[in-house]
Amino acid sequence: MQTVGVDVGGTNIEVGLVGDDHEVLGNAKQNTPVEGPDAVLDVIADLVAEVGGDPVGIGLGIPGVVHEGRALTVPNLPGWGDPVDLVGGLSDRTGLPVVLGNDGNVGLLGEWLHGAAKGHDDVLGVWLGTGVGGGLVLGGRPYLGSHGAAGEIGHVVVRDGGQLCGCGRRGCVEAYAGRRSMQTAVRALVDAGRETTLEQLRIDKGKESMTSSVWEAALEDGDDLAQEVFATGVDALGVGIGAVLNVLDVDLVVIGGGLAEKLGSDLADRIAESTRPWVMRPSPDLRFCVAALGDDSGVVGAAALSRSSVIAG
Amino acid sequence: MQTVGVDVGGTNIEVGLVGDDHEVLGNAKQNTPVEGPDAVLDVIADLVAEVGGDPVGIGLGIPGVVHEGRALTVPNLPGWGDPVDLVGGLSDRTGLPVVLGNDGNVGLLGEWLHGAAKGHDDVLGVWLGTGVGGGLVLGGRPYLGSHGAAGEIGHVVVRDGGQLCGCGRRGCVEAYAGRRSMQTAVRALVDAGRETTLEQLRIDKGKESMTSSVWEAALEDGDDLAQEVFATGVDALGVGIGAVLNVLDVDLVVIGGGLAEKLGSDLADRIAESTRPWVMRPSPDLRFCVAALGDDSGVVGAAALSRSSVIAG
Repeated sequence: MQTVGVDVGGTNIEVGLVGDDHEVLGNAKQNTPVEGPDAVLDVIADLVAEVGGDPVGIGLGIPGVVHEGRALTVPNLPGWGDPVDLVGGLSDRTGLPVVLGNDGNVGLLGEWLHGAAKGHDDVLGVWLGTGVGGGLVLGGRPYLGSHGAAGEIGHVVVRDGGQLCGCGRRGCVEAYAGRRSMQTAVRALVDAGRETTLEQLRIDKGKESMTSSVWEAALEDGDDLAQEVFATGVDALGVGIGAVLNVLDVDLVVIGGGLAEKLGSDLADRIAESTRPWVMRPSPDLRFCVAALGDDSGVVGAAALSRSSVIAG
Repeated sequence: MQTVGVDVGGTNIEVGLVGDDHEVLGNAKQNTPVEGPDAVLDVIADLVAEVGGDPVGIGLGIPGVVHEGRALTVPNLPGWGDPVDLVGGLSDRTGLPVVLGNDGNVGLLGEWLHGAAKGHDDVLGVWLGTGVGGGLVLGGRPYLGSHGAAGEIGHVVVRDGGQLCGCGRRGCVEAYAGRRSMQTAVRALVDAGRETTLEQLRIDKGKESMTSSVWEAALEDGDDLAQEVFATGVDALGVGIGAVLNVLDVDLVVIGGGLAEKLGSDLADRIAESTRPWVMRPSPDLRFCVAALGDDSGVVGAAALSRSSVIAG
C-alpha cells in the first residue's frame, strides 16, 4: 500500500510517496505560496500528481492546531486567519481521502516509526523551521493533548517580557530560535550598523528569506553576526527544553527541521550543552540527536497518519 | 483493606489511615523535623502508631525524585543530600511494607482517584507549598516520566537570569511562588525598609516560618507587601503554567497544597487569570480548580499507591 505524505512548512512544501515500510519512493518540493490556502492546495495537488504512484490516501502535516480532523489555526502562514477546509479542498483536487496532522507531531511520528526515536517511550521532538514546532511521545504513544494542541515548545516562555514573538506574546523560544525571528533580529542589527554575509548569501542562493542553507553557509564562513544570533537562539532553546524536561522527564530529544538537516549532530550537541544546566534531574539515559530521516520526517509521519486512517476506515 | 498515606512536606508531615473508598478514617500531623532523615522517620513512625487502625501497608510521598522505589534527591529537606533508605528505615520502624512516591505526583493521584480531577484524562497538578511541586495525568493515566522525575513545574524557568532558586538556577517558578522563596523576598524587602504584618502574624501564630495560614491572614488584612510578593508569585505561576499548557494541552489544572487549602477557589481563579494570556490555544474546556481533598490529597494518593502495591504483590 502506498500513501502520500505532505509536509507544509512556512518556507517549503514537501510531498513524498511512501511505501509499507515507511520508505520514501519518490518526492517533490516547492516553495510555500504566500497567496493563501487555495494557492497552497493547488501546489500540493500538483506535487501529489508529480510524485505519482498509486496512493490510497494523503496525510497532510500543517503548522497549526488540528483537532477532530480540522485545522483550527495556522499562525505562520499568511492569509490563513480563518479556519480553512483543507481536507475537502485537497480531497476535491486529488480524489483521495485526506487526513490532517500538526507538522511537529507528524515529524516526530515519522522519527518514532522509522527514525531516531524508534523504540523510545518518552520523546520530545523539537522542529526548527520558520517557527519552532514540536511533538511528544509519552508512555509509549504519541501524545497530542486534549484538543490536539500539544507539543508547542516554540511557545514556552523563557524570558517573561523578552523579545516579541509572532504569536503576539513576549519571550517565547520561537522569538529567539525560529528562522523568521532570527532573520528579523539580523536585519535590525544590520540597520543598527552591524555587518553580515547573511543577506548576500541569501541573494546569491536566490532565496526569498534566510533559509537553513543560508544560515549553514554563514555559520561555516564564521560570520560573527550569524553566530551571535544563532547562539542566542540555541540559548533560548536550552532554557525551554530544560523546562520541558523538568516537567516531562523524557530521555530522548530529537531535533528536526531544516536547520537540523543542514547542521547535523553538531546542532544536537550544541543544544544538549545549552539544555543540561537547566535540567534539575536529567534522566541517566538522556540523549539528544537530530532527525534520522532529515527532510523526510514530516512526509513519512504524515503518510503513516494516512495509512492508519485508511486501515481504520 | 486499610492503608496508611504519608505526605512529607517541607513544613509538615501528615499521616492518614485510608479505607477502600479512599476515605480518610483518621489522621495526624506534626512539623517536619530539620535534623535529617532519621528524625523524620521517627516522627512518621509515631504518627503511623497514632492513627492506629489495621493497615496493610504504607505509601510515602516525599518532596523528591523517586525511581524504582528509591528516593534519589530530596532538595527541600535539610540534611537529605545523600540517597536515604527510606523504605527500609520506615519498614523497620513499623513492620509494614512501604512504597515511595513524589509528593506532587501522589497529591494529584489522590485528586484524580477521589477528588477534583476524577474522570479527567489530561491534568496538570500544581502543588504550592514550601516549594512548588506538581504532577501529571496524561492520556488517562498518571505520567511519571522516564525515571520518575516528571511534574516539576516549580523548575520551569520563566525569567532566564531572574531570581535565584533553591535549586541553584535562576528564574524558576519556585523562585517566585514557593513559600520559602516568598519568605526570603519578604525579609529582603523588610531589610530594605518596607513594612509588613507577616512577621508579627508568624510570631503570633507560633510558627517557625511564614506558613500558608500566616499568608492567608496577611492577605486578608490587606497587607501591601504580602499582596505584592504574592502577586509576583501568581504572575510567575501564570507564565510557567501557560508554557506547560502550550506543550501539553491539558484541560484541567488542579492547584493543591497548603495555600490552595487556605485560599480556596479565589486562588484558582487568580492563577487562571494570570495563565490565560500565555496560552496560545487554550482547550475550549480548560478549567482551573483547587484540590477537592484539601490537605488530604497527598495522604489519599500515597495510601492508594500502597494499596496498588499490596494488591500487585
